[in-house]
Amino acid sequence: MSNPNERFNRITPSERVLMGPGPSDVSARVLQAISAPTIGHLDPEYLAIMDETRGMMRRLFRTRHEMTMAISGTGSAGMECCVVNLIEPGDEMIVCVNGVFGTRMKDVAERCGAVVHPIELAWGQSFEPDAIAQALKEHPNTKVVGIVHAETSTGAHQPLEEITQIVHDSGALLLVDAVTSLGGMDVRVDDWRIDAIYSGTQKCLSCPPGLAPVSFSPAALEKIQNRKTKVASWYLDVSMLAQYWGSDRVYHHTAPINMTYALHEALRIILEEGIDARIARHTLNHRALRAGLEAMGLSYIPPRSLTTLNAVHVPEGVDDAGVRKRLLNDFGIEIGAGLGPFKGKAWRIGLMGHASTKRNVLLVLSALETIMADQGRSVARGEGPAAASAVYETKQAVPA
Amino acid sequence: MSNPNERFNRITPSERVLMGPGPSDVSARVLQAISAPTIGHLDPEYLAIMDETRGMMRRLFRTRHEMTMAISGTGSAGMECCVVNLIEPGDEMIVCVNGVFGTRMKDVAERCGAVVHPIELAWGQSFEPDAIAQALKEHPNTKVVGIVHAETSTGAHQPLEEITQIVHDSGALLLVDAVTSLGGMDVRVDDWRIDAIYSGTQKCLSCPPGLAPVSFSPAALEKIQNRKTKVASWYLDVSMLAQYWGSDRVYHHTAPINMTYALHEALRIILEEGIDARIARHTLNHRALRAGLEAMGLSYIPPRSLTTLNAVHVPEGVDDAGVRKRLLNDFGIEIGAGLGPFKGKAWRIGLMGHASTKRNVLLVLSALETIMADQGRSVARGEGPAAASAVYETKQAVPA
Repeated sequence: MSNPNERFNRITPSERVLMGPGPSDVSARVLQAISAPTIGHLDPEYLAIMDETRGMMRRLFRTRHEMTMAISGTGSAGMECCVVNLIEPGDEMIVCVNGVFGTRMKDVAERCGAVVHPIELAWGQSFEPDAIAQALKEHPNTKVVGIVHAETSTGAHQPLEEITQIVHDSGALLLVDAVTSLGGMDVRVDDWRIDAIYSGTQKCLSCPPGLAPVSFSPAALEKIQNRKTKVASWYLDVSMLAQYWGSDRVYHHTAPINMTYALHEALRIILEEGIDARIARHTLNHRALRAGLEAMGLSYIPPRSLTTLNAVHVPEGVDDAGVRKRLLNDFGIEIGAGLGPFKGKAWRIGLMGHASTKRNVLLVLSALETIMADQGRSVARGEGPAAASAVYETKQAVPA
Repeated sequence: MSNPNERFNRITPSERVLMGPGPSDVSARVLQAISAPTIGHLDPEYLAIMDETRGMMRRLFRTRHEMTMAISGTGSAGMECCVVNLIEPGDEMIVCVNGVFGTRMKDVAERCGAVVHPIELAWGQSFEPDAIAQALKEHPNTKVVGIVHAETSTGAHQPLEEITQIVHDSGALLLVDAVTSLGGMDVRVDDWRIDAIYSGTQKCLSCPPGLAPVSFSPAALEKIQNRKTKVASWYLDVSMLAQYWGSDRVYHHTAPINMTYALHEALRIILEEGIDARIARHTLNHRALRAGLEAMGLSYIPPRSLTTLNAVHVPEGVDDAGVRKRLLNDFGIEIGAGLGPFKGKAWRIGLMGHASTKRNVLLVLSALETIMADQGRSVARGEGPAAASAVYETKQAVPA
């Protein structure tokens, strides 16, 4: 445990192709930005970088919300921040549970004293608006409805436009998990009237993990300002964080300076590409991958798949862990395993941000084909990549 | 707020000399490590880096505690992690308050339901063991005593060896804030029987901010395992974090991969230098700076000063903000302002980690002398640097 002769060498991590559920590949530009000289968290130069980062996050969230910022933690800290600020002990909250992250949100809410009314759905499914309407009828005192836009554990996409209308008609606030959608799929905070939203840097933003972009609507802030009890978490208390991110610049905690550099550059890259073009790129690459996987006989788990993450059933008789291990060791490709009920039964193939490319689509299809053929599974060689290529050929206009 | 014509340029932070209360200067080696390729949080290569980082943190804390790890947040997240895991609603806790961080610990503890018995002392003072003994006599059901080893807001050093005996004799657990001491001053977790301790990466470890090394004793873990209620924070729940840091590798949240790279390299640098040599270097540079500041007529605030942070009174008639602004703009040197009752009345000059050098000592003394002379304060030119140099001349054996 503390052997004084143990030697510690310089780290030399391999250059992977990150096609799991996150982190995704980080570009050289972002890795260069993260290594810029560290400066103080109250240095005027740093405060200017914070302001710009905030401005770019607002554009990405498509919001005018003043209270948009990056929480000093990973995506789950963003979840905890949203829940712990909005919920006071005894508040009723509806949480939509159809995977790991809805389950987690329920747990987080209960820990800060919410009376949670979960709506459960089979993993992989998406919620119909009627289910939310029904639950709100049963629990008319609901203060907050929490839902996952992009369920990273199942690859299910959750449309929000009808649901937000129902939630707001009831007088409740809408809290959205956009960890695996922001930067890759359409997320419209103002148009969809989302009251609290969180994401992570390591998915479609293609920045290292460590920050959680969040945004709160004026209605959410009003609930926070009218709290009768202090927020259970000092570290995540939005009222205090607001004074550092706002013009007062009151010291709260030391911001993760270099991570902010990285996020700033990642956001610059997104705005250079254009949000709509980026969403279109994710859609196209997903369609190509899907065509390839299905040509190889693989089937998708969710009826409504994300374009950023592709969850498929591991075929009968194929060794899940063996395939993932060979992908990593022979090709340097990381894909994700299944979680919970999908443990050993699902692969989660990410096409997020910098990793959502034609090159990666063809690579992963070819690699999977090779490995599965070695496992004795009869795959007509070349069918996967060919099917993917056909999708690209009909869509030459969109950059791959 | 969302002006579509606003341009965002590549960041170009200046190379500062960071001599405030943190962050401290980060070496080129650490900045190189942080920009290594991002890999997955369950990649065998990353797990090996985690294990090594953990091993090095144990050496730095001088502990054999199994439950030693880095929390995915800054130092204040480390504080919240320690408090929120050890405290159940209704638990009595003594918090020693003599500055910002004791005040913060009291706030954090109250938010998670502790019945806090604060022991208040004038800012800048250190606690005598008798005060703790007295408080424990008054509150015999105290479960946890929280104290700040290095009070960053006042520069006061808190000796712990007698206090730990008193606390353990009472049956309580000892919780220590070592944010500004770990890596620069003597911190002996096992010898001093510290049950829970937290630090930050951006002080004497000279790593960018964003991680909080923590360590829990078996007695602390036993209290955590016997909790009747869930930990209020999901993100900081030690029992869950233990499963990811331990051999089970159960996914909890996505670790801040590149920050871990940086911490790994920062710890390698510390162990290469040797902990004792590093402490001696901090002591020597502090003594030299102190001799210089006092020769210039500046006086220290705390009777027992840290060697890592020097808090002095701003002299009468000197413009606090003006001096700090000129230090930053003319010399690129950051020093810290006073907080709370010391706002406008104190300077906090850090000599932490990579920034604790003879070069920086002489630089800051010369720069301060120049600026104060410009402000019309009669300073015999050269006296500060000369007094510092005299200290070094008597201590040639220790590397500056």
